[in-house]
Amino acid sequence: MDFSYSPKVEQLRERTQAFFDRHIAPNEARVEEAIAENRRLGKPWTPVALFEELKAEARAQDLWNLFLPRSERAPQGLSNLEYAPLCEIMGRCEWAPEIFNCSAPDTGNMEVLERYGSEAQKDEWLEPLLAGTIRSAFLMTEPAVASSDATNIECSIRRDGDDYVINGRKWFSSGAGDPRCRIYIVMGKTDPEQAKHRQQSMILVPADTPGIEVLRPVTVFGYDDAPHGHMDIRLTDVRVPASNLLLGEGRGFEIAQGRLGPGRIHHCMRTIGLAERALELLCQRVSSRVAFGRRLSEYSIWHERIAEARCMIDQARLLTLKAADAMDKVGNKAARTEIAMIKVVAPNMACQIIDWAIQAHGGAGVSSDFPLAHAYAGARSLRLADGPDEVHRSTIARLELARHASVADAAH
Amino acid sequence: MDFSYSPKVEQLRERTQAFFDRHIAPNEARVEEAIAENRRLGKPWTPVALFEELKAEARAQDLWNLFLPRSERAPQGLSNLEYAPLCEIMGRCEWAPEIFNCSAPDTGNMEVLERYGSEAQKDEWLEPLLAGTIRSAFLMTEPAVASSDATNIECSIRRDGDDYVINGRKWFSSGAGDPRCRIYIVMGKTDPEQAKHRQQSMILVPADTPGIEVLRPVTVFGYDDAPHGHMDIRLTDVRVPASNLLLGEGRGFEIAQGRLGPGRIHHCMRTIGLAERALELLCQRVSSRVAFGRRLSEYSIWHERIAEARCMIDQARLLTLKAADAMDKVGNKAARTEIAMIKVVAPNMACQIIDWAIQAHGGAGVSSDFPLAHAYAGARSLRLADGPDEVHRSTIARLELARHASVADAAH
Amino acid sequence: MDFSYSPKVEQLRERTQAFFDRHIAPNEARVEEAIAENRRLGKPWTPVALFEELKAEARAQDLWNLFLPRSERAPQGLSNLEYAPLCEIMGRCEWAPEIFNCSAPDTGNMEVLERYGSEAQKDEWLEPLLAGTIRSAFLMTEPAVASSDATNIECSIRRDGDDYVINGRKWFSSGAGDPRCRIYIVMGKTDPEQAKHRQQSMILVPADTPGIEVLRPVTVFGYDDAPHGHMDIRLTDVRVPASNLLLGEGRGFEIAQGRLGPGRIHHCMRTIGLAERALELLCQRVSSRVAFGRRLSEYSIWHERIAEARCMIDQARLLTLKAADAMDKVGNKAARTEIAMIKVVAPNMACQIIDWAIQAHGGAGVSSDFPLAHAYAGARSLRLADGPDEVHRSTIARLELARHASVADAAH
Amino acid sequence: MDFSYSPKVEQLRERTQAFFDRHIAPNEARVEEAIAENRRLGKPWTPVALFEELKAEARAQDLWNLFLPRSERAPQGLSNLEYAPLCEIMGRCEWAPEIFNCSAPDTGNMEVLERYGSEAQKDEWLEPLLAGTIRSAFLMTEPAVASSDATNIECSIRRDGDDYVINGRKWFSSGAGDPRCRIYIVMGKTDPEQAKHRQQSMILVPADTPGIEVLRPVTVFGYDDAPHGHMDIRLTDVRVPASNLLLGEGRGFEIAQGRLGPGRIHHCMRTIGLAERALELLCQRVSSRVAFGRRLSEYSIWHERIAEARCMIDQARLLTLKAADAMDKVGNKAARTEIAMIKVVAPNMACQIIDWAIQAHGGAGVSSDFPLAHAYAGARSLRLADGPDEVHRSTIARLELARHASVADAAH
Repeated sequence: MDFSYSPKVEQLRERTQAFFDRHIAPNEARVEEAIAENRRLGKPWTPVALFEELKAEARAQDLWNLFLPRSERAPQGLSNLEYAPLCEIMGRCEWAPEIFNCSAPDTGNMEVLERYGSEAQKDEWLEPLLAGTIRSAFLMTEPAVASSDATNIECSIRRDGDDYVINGRKWFSSGAGDPRCRIYIVMGKTDPEQAKHRQQSMILVPADTPGIEVLRPVTVFGYDDAPHGHMDIRLTDVRVPASNLLLGEGRGFEIAQGRLGPGRIHHCMRTIGLAERALELLCQRVSSRVAFGRRLSEYSIWHERIAEARCMIDQARLLTLKAADAMDKVGNKAARTEIAMIKVVAPNMACQIIDWAIQAHGGAGVSSDFPLAHAYAGARSLRLADGPDEVHRSTIARLELARHASVADAAH
Repeated sequence: MDFSYSPKVEQLRERTQAFFDRHIAPNEARVEEAIAENRRLGKPWTPVALFEELKAEARAQDLWNLFLPRSERAPQGLSNLEYAPLCEIMGRCEWAPEIFNCSAPDTGNMEVLERYGSEAQKDEWLEPLLAGTIRSAFLMTEPAVASSDATNIECSIRRDGDDYVINGRKWFSSGAGDPRCRIYIVMGKTDPEQAKHRQQSMILVPADTPGIEVLRPVTVFGYDDAPHGHMDIRLTDVRVPASNLLLGEGRGFEIAQGRLGPGRIHHCMRTIGLAERALELLCQRVSSRVAFGRRLSEYSIWHERIAEARCMIDQARLLTLKAADAMDKVGNKAARTEIAMIKVVAPNMACQIIDWAIQAHGGAGVSSDFPLAHAYAGARSLRLADGPDEVHRSTIARLELARHASVADAAH
Repeated sequence: MDFSYSPKVEQLRERTQAFFDRHIAPNEARVEEAIAENRRLGKPWTPVALFEELKAEARAQDLWNLFLPRSERAPQGLSNLEYAPLCEIMGRCEWAPEIFNCSAPDTGNMEVLERYGSEAQKDEWLEPLLAGTIRSAFLMTEPAVASSDATNIECSIRRDGDDYVINGRKWFSSGAGDPRCRIYIVMGKTDPEQAKHRQQSMILVPADTPGIEVLRPVTVFGYDDAPHGHMDIRLTDVRVPASNLLLGEGRGFEIAQGRLGPGRIHHCMRTIGLAERALELLCQRVSSRVAFGRRLSEYSIWHERIAEARCMIDQARLLTLKAADAMDKVGNKAARTEIAMIKVVAPNMACQIIDWAIQAHGGAGVSSDFPLAHAYAGARSLRLADGPDEVHRSTIARLELARHASVADAAH
Repeated sequence: MDFSYSPKVEQLRERTQAFFDRHIAPNEARVEEAIAENRRLGKPWTPVALFEELKAEARAQDLWNLFLPRSERAPQGLSNLEYAPLCEIMGRCEWAPEIFNCSAPDTGNMEVLERYGSEAQKDEWLEPLLAGTIRSAFLMTEPAVASSDATNIECSIRRDGDDYVINGRKWFSSGAGDPRCRIYIVMGKTDPEQAKHRQQSMILVPADTPGIEVLRPVTVFGYDDAPHGHMDIRLTDVRVPASNLLLGEGRGFEIAQGRLGPGRIHHCMRTIGLAERALELLCQRVSSRVAFGRRLSEYSIWHERIAEARCMIDQARLLTLKAADAMDKVGNKAARTEIAMIKVVAPNMACQIIDWAIQAHGGAGVSSDFPLAHAYAGARSLRLADGPDEVHRSTIARLELARHASVADAAH
């Protein structure tokens, strides 16, 4: 047992942090202004030009595709435990991960292609994604049903000759607002008559296939998150070649499970980075404002909150790193309790700390002058995205109850 | 002691509820669409045409200016305890209060004019406000200082001959986005050399006075709340006649105190109406969605939250009504503990319940398909507007400690 | 609607408070010492002699049996709303209610006899209870089953000729430790074949009936609460005349429901009195202790807690008084939501406030030098006694869900 | 970074757990009965005979003095990180640590003697403590002042010729009830004129020195914790040789700081063990009880709590192990944030989880039939012992604020 980062990780952290300090932090206002300008010009769904510049720089510095586990196409790949602390650094700024080609949902989609795609699928879609020249979306959640129970999914993927024909409605399809988004991975049912977890399949659908309508961006609190966006999409008789199916009919649930593990580590570590930033802003604010004759930082109510925040962040980080370590050592499935735990812990922790930071900022906290209200919207959504807290807590509890079941039976 | 509404109030509640059910609720989608359409047309700061129609109807039904306490110009005025339950009904929909000419900040501004204005000021500004033909704003909070401590205020109101000249920066000036907004009440310092609570004054400033720049709408969790808006305003050498001063130099703090009491009852009761609606949506959602083989409404975790919500709402309502009763009986000053208490209790209660409702709705909860995320943004802001929780809790605590001080001294 | 106590209640409050200040508060240390002395002498289960003196005084002052609703034998009876505030005063000291002959479980048992007893039963047991010459116990909860679900009860009451024969195990039989306790009301099953809520009956069992074994006092967080006590009792072939049955076979559940309402008002108001005392002690402590150069009362963390405590107490009191008002106006059954709500709200509120008071006292808070740890034990038990929080929350939630059911159905 | 225990630790854990399962768990009822029997015989302050047997066995198995860091007299000593997980196992049962000669306050006292004692002091007191033939107490906290601020301490240690004369009042002197307790370490002021942190000294006082009065056991909630006990002690002109002073005059604060670090790791890990046991009992209970037609374990409210408990325990453990690692690597002083953090986190976590477990057990939870109420009393006291939460949170916050101070200054 050892709580220090390895020298390799320390060095990667330094390089990532240096990049962040030099290229991300100083450009935050500029990016915000670019998006605002696009919005004023009536074209909010335009990529920010600066991003391509910064991406080239990250690639040049070999800070590119860091998320990718070791594989044939990524021999330098990092373990989850090695990558996680880098994710935390990137998480401090909403658009930073894209600069390192490490942003959701592309990372998860690239992993799916890497693990489950055919060589042809990899050549066509994985390569440009790895190169950062296109982007992708993941069409899973549906407005009409409780999607946390994947067996509820209604989107239909029907075989028709050499094609599959897709009909359904999907929303919260993040990234589908970006004009560079060229490929969707769609989850749907190929055979509702199969056993519960064998009904679903995943299929690759190019974004320009006829029958796809991007209806609107779904807002999160009042944010449309342009130019990324969380889109509401209708698929009507969308036809793609049968070879677009991933892995095989009825294996969608299996792919979904495989996709989840690393993605949760990434999300949680980014969320921890966000929480660190909120705490930093909180500390700076209470140190600089005076009310009723004292700096806010001298009021013990702020000591309570700062201390709780520090305890919560450090604990959430340790739990997430432990989950990453478990995934590396025993695999996604054996580490599913740990993965469910961090999915609950990290977003709840972040919501609370960001909320305290908002409170410290007064009206400014809910405004756009600080990144806090937006950060809150993001963290709050994470308590719902990819299954609400309640589903994950139930998973954790069932595993815990099972551990004690034999003892309880004996005690009867 | 009696916990039933009087027959007069019951009858007013029925009439207000009937109006709400007939004219407000069925028009919510239409209003939302009108605002969206204005936004698409590049003119988001346009009043919704339907409002004038509905206002005429409310006036015809004598459901107009209900907030106004009994006075010469409002002989039919209601007590705080009588008006409060009507406020709760209006609070269920964000724009409903305006239809009854009962929306903030106009109500508070009208009260200020009624209580502290000269007859000339009343004729010029109170009458059209009572008639609902113009709107107003209240310029108090400043971005540069902790405005919860009113002595921090920096805006200067300097006497110059027969005029006052105003320089300062104000934000969260709600309603100043509306083109019908014609008059501002501005809080500033006439004499920084006076005793702490005698430095401030309030002055009437017509919205079209030269030197006023409406810089931007301040967003609240991404919402600009058009066409109402919370504006960021710069005042540069804004000159108004000396007769525009309210009550007298150095009496701004006194006016602010007088303005607060009823406004807090209104805000809190509206917030309670909002919380009721969130609980209603929550109950409907969990009754209609199925996950893992059961309706959500059968999961005991939702029973816990629904029950807590019911307990919290009913307690907050009782406390607010008791505060209203106290204000009616002993006045704002003697009821200041009660008023501070509801200011803390109601928005915190609403935030929690709306958050649970969001959780019950999954992704839909943070979207614009339900009014929940917007309601959360509003309720969360109320924990900061007009003083953050911490300031009010400190007020309550000091009064409580004082009650026990003599006992403690005796025990030494 | 009116939040002031009536003149009659105000006058009763004054008299009760005066009695408390003169006869209860100054004797607290003396009573504690008397119990400690009895314990040292090996006879902890001896009534405190002083009590009889004080009871005579309370009776002389006509502050006796105040709990009793208006009836033939109590023409001066108070309504629930009138009695509730007196209960709060008594609740400040654990043994005070007995002095006014208003202590549980005697009050509930007297109500049962008054409402459901035969004239013969009233003559034999109600009269001496009203006179305060004997005490009683209520044998309901069983160690072997989740007694919150009354249908789980296993104690058997079997008809045998002119007798009933009782077999079972009961615990938390409060007051059965007192040698003056002469009569038990026992809940059990007369016919397990009946419909769920018609299986139970209640029967009067004199404490000296053969077959009764008082096994031990059950402790509550280490307290045995001598000389009152919460006893663990085994009943083996306990035989009583059939005429001892209350109301009739299969009506035990009905009696239990009738017994609960007023008892909950009493418990909750006493709990509110306890919470007020804890807050008072907290305020005195933080006003008198210095750490790191300041009085604790100057630290804002204590302002937060004091303010929250004041808000919580006042809200819980209003809710309880409203429940009392509802019981008076529409009866126990129609007021069951309100009654379930206060059962959850009051003990949870008290636990939190007492816990803060403990924290303010440091080590002294958990010791016997202050009544706080004991108060906590009592308040914590109330979250379980007479049904755990979860059961009451479920009741509240089901009623709330039912209110919205039709709307939800329509929305499908 | 590595989250697995080392093979050495795994093997020690197995051996400790095996001892626990074989010698501790099966004897719990027997020990409880022995204490109850002693109490019935009027001699509650008698050591439990069985302990000596078990201690011999632990010593034979080389599971003895495991807490002791590597040193001359303990060449086999474990690091904090190695010992911590063993502490967790021992913490499941209140009296288990003593069996391994690893119980507080002896461990802290032995560390003090080891680090700061003279050779003569070690020979006389450390050796028999290491052998487990005598026990000790630590006299620090005083009833009259807020002892969390060590500068408040009033006990006087006055030089008089070749002696020191001690006068003061101490309480919560744990273990001083045990007749085997032979030596006290007393904290007091040798020179109130010195700088704040140079006024205090520590001195060895044999328990049989004239002038010592053990006034009473202080109860914690209702528990006297016989035969260990938390004693209230008066020292009147207690005279000991000057050579009994530890380290030197004015170095008491320094010793106190040195003593705290490892003790907090131990306390926290034991508390984690306690919390694990509470969760285990909770799971067993909800799996075995039925209410309203379902096992409690099927109600989602219990899933929520079980999952939260698992998350809280695992996080607290990681944080404590990280603190132990930090202490081993950089020393007590550099690790003071981590040490303050676990002092807040672990007892709060345990209080919450034990409280849930109590709730799951109904009335049985607050009784002595389960170890939960007693465990709660212990965990709740830990939020006060050795400084209340507020003091530690303030420490954490000040360090956090300092980290951001320069940034805040720059931002002005």
